[in-house]
Amino acid sequence: MVEGIRAVAEVPRELLTAVFCVEGFGSTEEGKAFLKEITDKAPNINVEEVATNVFKSMCDTVTPQGVLAVVKMQDFTLEDVLGAGKDTKAHIVILETLQDPGNMGTIIRTAEGAGATGIIMNSTSVDLYSPKVVRSTMGSIFRVPHLIVQDLAGTIKELEEKHGVSVYAAHLKGYRFYDELDFTGPTAFMIGNEGNGLTDEIAELATSYLKIPMEGQLESLNASVAASLLMYETHRQRK
Amino acid sequence: MVEGIRAVAEVPRELLTAVFCVEGFGSTEEGKAFLKEITDKAPNINVEEVATNVFKSMCDTVTPQGVLAVVKMQDFTLEDVLGAGKDTKAHIVILETLQDPGNMGTIIRTAEGAGATGIIMNSTSVDLYSPKVVRSTMGSIFRVPHLIVQDLAGTIKELEEKHGVSVYAAHLKGYRFYDELDFTGPTAFMIGNEGNGLTDEIAELATSYLKIPMEGQLESLNASVAASLLMYETHRQRK
Repeated sequence: MVEGIRAVAEVPRELLTAVFCVEGFGSTEEGKAFLKEITDKAPNINVEEVATNVFKSMCDTVTPQGVLAVVKMQDFTLEDVLGAGKDTKAHIVILETLQDPGNMGTIIRTAEGAGATGIIMNSTSVDLYSPKVVRSTMGSIFRVPHLIVQDLAGTIKELEEKHGVSVYAAHLKGYRFYDELDFTGPTAFMIGNEGNGLTDEIAELATSYLKIPMEGQLESLNASVAASLLMYETHRQRK
Repeated sequence: MVEGIRAVAEVPRELLTAVFCVEGFGSTEEGKAFLKEITDKAPNINVEEVATNVFKSMCDTVTPQGVLAVVKMQDFTLEDVLGAGKDTKAHIVILETLQDPGNMGTIIRTAEGAGATGIIMNSTSVDLYSPKVVRSTMGSIFRVPHLIVQDLAGTIKELEEKHGVSVYAAHLKGYRFYDELDFTGPTAFMIGNEGNGLTDEIAELATSYLKIPMEGQLESLNASVAASLLMYETHRQRK
């Protein structure tokens, strides 16, 4: 489910399944322009108008903008996440049991900006398709290849052994700063749960450990900030 | 108001005004250890035990950890924010009408990690002392000098004209990438509202514009991610 004018407008045509708007939406200037855009983009989609109370009960946000869409989930493969067909080496973020929807959305959004090839997460991470995550990706969820895996450890081993990916963990064991390492080859970064970090089982699978410098008395950075610094350092090195 | 064992433990002694705990808190292992820590740290503070329903009504979080503190607001000056007495040049983040508590908290947290000297915000930004902001700073709010100003434009001019600070705005007008600029001198970064960015009035006061590279179809980065990239680039250059 995708809510709001801007968010629905960003859904690729082939993923749009149904669009609903609140009664009267089509008689506003903005509504009219939007419905024309949808009709032009996806002539096979019939926009259904529903009563205000029905529309409200369909929405997650308190102040919905009068339109929501049902969107097909995408089937990405590990090859997609590795960047198959793209002119860049693998640049992946691996999330273990990330819990905060805002962090998840922000990581996907930043991944697009930094040119990451994809995201892998375990199934105990926050629901990728929850409305708050979808909103905070600002449309990136439709463009950044992502994979939810049952066996995260097995997938990490496959990345390392079969695809030659260097998998880094930001970890207390790290003794090299992130901007002293070489991320120009196939690279993945592991980011753990907000409260507990990576489990030992997953952290031990890292090809190498790294650290992000921290001044003051801070013990850790926010998960999405750590991921963003690593992805943009990779972008910087590959320019 | 600061809630939770870890958060209260991070409050500097001189700012603690009162501490409340829920009935029975002192008879748990964790509670006992915590109360001893508070008594050792601030012997003048009397921890008051209150009934469960009273405690719940005092708390913002749904699952409070049984303890909360009333904390003095700090009076920082512009000199503090400029890093007076510290072995570094000014490294400031200026926030215009930032609305999301999570973004505000994350920026303050990252500011400590990146060694920024302080934060300046206008009074229409989200309440810095709201429970969600305080929680998401992870204690940094007690350590990072910050200033809420009525006249943001006037303060920016003062930074530039009186203190020789270069004030950068991430802006569409920017044609130089952030990692090509020199942030080793006194530096400030302006970050605007999540939906609308900087107002023209404030953006026009920038000493220079910069841009953060973005791949794909992304129009902008999350405000706290943009601030974090700029602060850590400054940290990297000053190492």
